[in-house]
Amino acid sequence: MNDIKQANNDYPVHPLIKERWSPRVFDAQPVEDEKIRSLFEAARWAASSMNDQPWRFIYAKKGSAAYDKIVDCLYEFNQGWVTHAPVLILTAYKEKFDSGKTNFHAGHDLGLAVANLTLQAQAMGLGVHQMAGVHWQKAQEVFDVPEGIHVSTCLAVGYYGGDTDLLSEELRKSEQAPRSRKKQNEFAFEGKWG
Amino acid sequence: MNDIKQANNDYPVHPLIKERWSPRVFDAQPVEDEKIRSLFEAARWAASSMNDQPWRFIYAKKGSAAYDKIVDCLYEFNQGWVTHAPVLILTAYKEKFDSGKTNFHAGHDLGLAVANLTLQAQAMGLGVHQMAGVHWQKAQEVFDVPEGIHVSTCLAVGYYGGDTDLLSEELRKSEQAPRSRKKQNEFAFEGKWG
Repeated sequence: MNDIKQANNDYPVHPLIKERWSPRVFDAQPVEDEKIRSLFEAARWAASSMNDQPWRFIYAKKGSAAYDKIVDCLYEFNQGWVTHAPVLILTAYKEKFDSGKTNFHAGHDLGLAVANLTLQAQAMGLGVHQMAGVHWQKAQEVFDVPEGIHVSTCLAVGYYGGDTDLLSEELRKSEQAPRSRKKQNEFAFEGKWG
Repeated sequence: MNDIKQANNDYPVHPLIKERWSPRVFDAQPVEDEKIRSLFEAARWAASSMNDQPWRFIYAKKGSAAYDKIVDCLYEFNQGWVTHAPVLILTAYKEKFDSGKTNFHAGHDLGLAVANLTLQAQAMGLGVHQMAGVHWQKAQEVFDVPEGIHVSTCLAVGYYGGDTDLLSEELRKSEQAPRSRKKQNEFAFEGKWG
């Protein structure tokens, strides 16, 4: 557990939520296959609109050609640290229901699944860093992702730990800074807006 | 714990994920204010793109005028069961970053926050039923939600329990049916699509 990165919560929350954070360095040990299976199993049991389960994932382990291909699809900023992660996961969502109707909640439901995956990771000692900084069109092409599936984010996954000296000074500072959030009165309202 | 509704998981997952499901009846007891605070606190500490925290919530307790206003904004199908819930929560997301740029992950990040809220609920014995069936434009108007904030879903929240005889025959069957999901090989791929 990282004392600095624990949520400075105003009301009680479960330890899996309090202690989760998004590291940019990871312990060098690989993530076991059975742990990877448990990550996706947690995603699998998320709720979704019409139980459509629109989430899709392409993952790769460090050392594989596919891993390097995922790295190539990330913004340069993310390329600067992401190779510390033993596993990378591209996330995507299916844009339409099988009926052909647009699923306006497909991205939202991917988020539900990724949060489940992240909390399952936390329960197994793994950290997950989510990145929006993905050249998604490039990723669609590189991985031949079919039409109707939209690449969304990338997840860096590995055991917490790892040497922050491997990071640039700016990222090292971020790695050692407390997490911060808006207060509840800025986003949760009773009975009326605001 | 509801034996029927436990995930029939193929790989180990945390009990909060295994045992969560989406009830349509609830125990009549109100949800304590401090528990409501913990729900939003869990949402608060979710990850988000650029730490923008785009999630917004309007909640109401059964018996209040605002509760009835939320019910009025739901699809008729949901109106048929949702008033069993002691608490209703409209969810919404902020569409742009403060810079003015569109946040393409705002709905996704709302999903991350709602999943946190749902797992916190589970940890406190509360069930959450998410609904996409919201007349969102009506909800925007009824609650004077400002431009740039997009109403997304509604959450019915209450203690698990409650009498399934209160439901229509169709919903009672659904309430007593096992949860089902695609297999991992349909959505989680190593190294390449499919």
